[in-house]
Amino acid sequence: MSETDTHVIHALDADDPLSHYRDKFFHGDSDLIYLDGNSLGRLPRATMNYMRNIVTNQWGDSLIRGWRSGWMDLQEKLGNKIAKIIGANEGEVIVADSTTVNLYRLALAAVMHQAKDHRTRIVTDNLNFPSDVYVFQGISNIIKGSRVEIIPSTDNLHGPVTEISRALDDHTALLSLSHTVFKSGYTYDMTELTAQAHAAGALVLWDLSHSAGALPVDLRKSRADLAVGCCYKYLNGGPGAPAFLYVRRELQEQLLNPLTGWFSQENMFEMELDYKPTSGIRRFTSGTPPVLAVSAIEPSLDIFLEVGMEAIWKKSLGLTDLFIHLFDQHLAPLNFRLNSPRNPKYRGSHISLGHDEAWRINQALISEMNVLPDFRPPDNIRLGFAPLYTSYVDVYTAVMRLRQVVTEKRYENYSQEKTDVT
Amino acid sequence: MSETDTHVIHALDADDPLSHYRDKFFHGDSDLIYLDGNSLGRLPRATMNYMRNIVTNQWGDSLIRGWRSGWMDLQEKLGNKIAKIIGANEGEVIVADSTTVNLYRLALAAVMHQAKDHRTRIVTDNLNFPSDVYVFQGISNIIKGSRVEIIPSTDNLHGPVTEISRALDDHTALLSLSHTVFKSGYTYDMTELTAQAHAAGALVLWDLSHSAGALPVDLRKSRADLAVGCCYKYLNGGPGAPAFLYVRRELQEQLLNPLTGWFSQENMFEMELDYKPTSGIRRFTSGTPPVLAVSAIEPSLDIFLEVGMEAIWKKSLGLTDLFIHLFDQHLAPLNFRLNSPRNPKYRGSHISLGHDEAWRINQALISEMNVLPDFRPPDNIRLGFAPLYTSYVDVYTAVMRLRQVVTEKRYENYSQEKTDVT
Repeated sequence: MSETDTHVIHALDADDPLSHYRDKFFHGDSDLIYLDGNSLGRLPRATMNYMRNIVTNQWGDSLIRGWRSGWMDLQEKLGNKIAKIIGANEGEVIVADSTTVNLYRLALAAVMHQAKDHRTRIVTDNLNFPSDVYVFQGISNIIKGSRVEIIPSTDNLHGPVTEISRALDDHTALLSLSHTVFKSGYTYDMTELTAQAHAAGALVLWDLSHSAGALPVDLRKSRADLAVGCCYKYLNGGPGAPAFLYVRRELQEQLLNPLTGWFSQENMFEMELDYKPTSGIRRFTSGTPPVLAVSAIEPSLDIFLEVGMEAIWKKSLGLTDLFIHLFDQHLAPLNFRLNSPRNPKYRGSHISLGHDEAWRINQALISEMNVLPDFRPPDNIRLGFAPLYTSYVDVYTAVMRLRQVVTEKRYENYSQEKTDVT
Repeated sequence: MSETDTHVIHALDADDPLSHYRDKFFHGDSDLIYLDGNSLGRLPRATMNYMRNIVTNQWGDSLIRGWRSGWMDLQEKLGNKIAKIIGANEGEVIVADSTTVNLYRLALAAVMHQAKDHRTRIVTDNLNFPSDVYVFQGISNIIKGSRVEIIPSTDNLHGPVTEISRALDDHTALLSLSHTVFKSGYTYDMTELTAQAHAAGALVLWDLSHSAGALPVDLRKSRADLAVGCCYKYLNGGPGAPAFLYVRRELQEQLLNPLTGWFSQENMFEMELDYKPTSGIRRFTSGTPPVLAVSAIEPSLDIFLEVGMEAIWKKSLGLTDLFIHLFDQHLAPLNFRLNSPRNPKYRGSHISLGHDEAWRINQALISEMNVLPDFRPPDNIRLGFAPLYTSYVDVYTAVMRLRQVVTEKRYENYSQEKTDVT
């Protein structure tokens, strides 16, 4: 790339209306090109002081009184903030447990509801995150007659939309997909698939883990029934941050949370022994929430609400467009493959690169070049672009360092044995 | 109480080998008599710096690399520390999710395992924590033919041991009880009840929430099958801290976790689509753990391991003995009732006081006297004695302030309407 080109890249950052948000995040090592915000978002600077206050003033000073002065409503308060990020209404989203537990709870609730009409089949695809598929397999072991149908993608990159549509029938209880799939970043048309499932009488459950905070999601417009998602990726809620769940308002009274517990009990402090599910989104919670971990999510959510998802999506497209442009110029000639959609309509905010030496290149990139992507088998170097803190210069530098690893054959010093994949 | 008596009380603190542990906890308001460590344990001073390090150095600096440098083994590492506190073996305990989710997971696993022998009934008692009963009711709605039998206590104070024993038969899948019950603090003989359940062919699941960190538990000796417990009470893990679960080693390969997820998958990063449960205690986890909240538990556990449960139990007995002695002298004459066992063999580390004006007395105590117990319907003022930081002077002062609320009729200024019960 010529000097003219680098000038262009710097101009992109100079013109970026979100560029000053980069400093709202902690950067311990300023040379590190961090491209794994889709696995663990960076630490917002505001969260550092916020957590000091939660630990010392709230836990330390308020002690048990903390429940009356905020903790009891924390899950709903943050849920309502997330609702604005994913196009849901107030009272339709709540923060609770892990994505896996939430998925289990909502999928089992849906299957138990639909079983009354002899619908027990769960339809998903082979691009879905494996943990989601494990949850469905677990449910099919619990509910008599239930089974999971995994629709394969023809190219392991694009969603098998037509095949899914064909698989939906009057035995289908639930269609559940990752909105943005974890490897290729392919993003489904939520409105289209939801309508097809509804036409077949099925409920729909979207996993928004790789979408929330990266691209616009409109649960309201798409008429989605159920959704879950992760707060530790683009939402920057901290390692393993508690997740969120969404239940469309009209469904809240129809479904029963199978994972009953006192936080979903009507008048929980009356301590009655008969379970009476409360109304509203709280009905889909179970036990006491981990206040420290839930609290840590809030400062980042406030940044999202300030910026708005349209500006974030625009920046995301700018970053992935630039990456694909540089890929064609510098990486395709070195036998890298683009394992993500070129069409921006189907593109998430992360891009997977394939290469016959992907595993060794990934190791060299981390160990020698201070670029931090992640790796997904069999041959995907996955690069996440977090619009709030990834710069255009980051994208450019990452491509240059990737190129250098291959042209200088630096990967040859690394083992082909796959270990420590996280 | 005479001056001679207060001299005796101060001497108890002076002779207390645990007295210097009090300063290892944060005391924002030094006049506060905090008697709710059985609901939310105090903040260990060490946790304050520890959490600063977890947030800034681990999340902020290590970013995704934190998983390889400790987070991945965190649940098992802390589980092994808790194992020493509750008399379990290495590899039998893990920190995960909430007590409710863990109870659901293990109880459902047990019922599904036992259903093969036509055992689907869950036996519990009416002293159990309501959330536990809700979990069993939820499970009985999922598993065909399953039902919950709630054995009543005759005096709502002591466990109905004989009646439970009689209820165990060849339809019983599971006996599940709170080891120390949440209202009266009655504590079951774990070895005796476990043996009775085993004789009837049932599995046993103990909820240790009000025992762990307060009194000696010996899961090994008692041959207990399953257990769950809370880390935010005596274990001082922070508000809503993630919970723990225990599965006896020999049962680990026999039971299947119904709440399947990638953290319980064999070789989770190979991202295979077929669920293959891993071996060991990890098999009973599901999704990504909330690292910040899990980490916060560790500094307190290290204090427990340093002190040992025998010393803690000795101090607990000293505190409750003193309280009962002062109760007889000062509170019984004011129409307070002791709603907890006098026999130390059946006594936990919290004591419930009944009174016809309990609700109003409790309000006055909190608002005017700076004593913080909690309240459990219908008429229990519940006083928790946390051996690591409750002093003998605290116990004495609490009794004197309780007495003052009644003799000066201070409670009469408060409403009888029950609100904000936490």
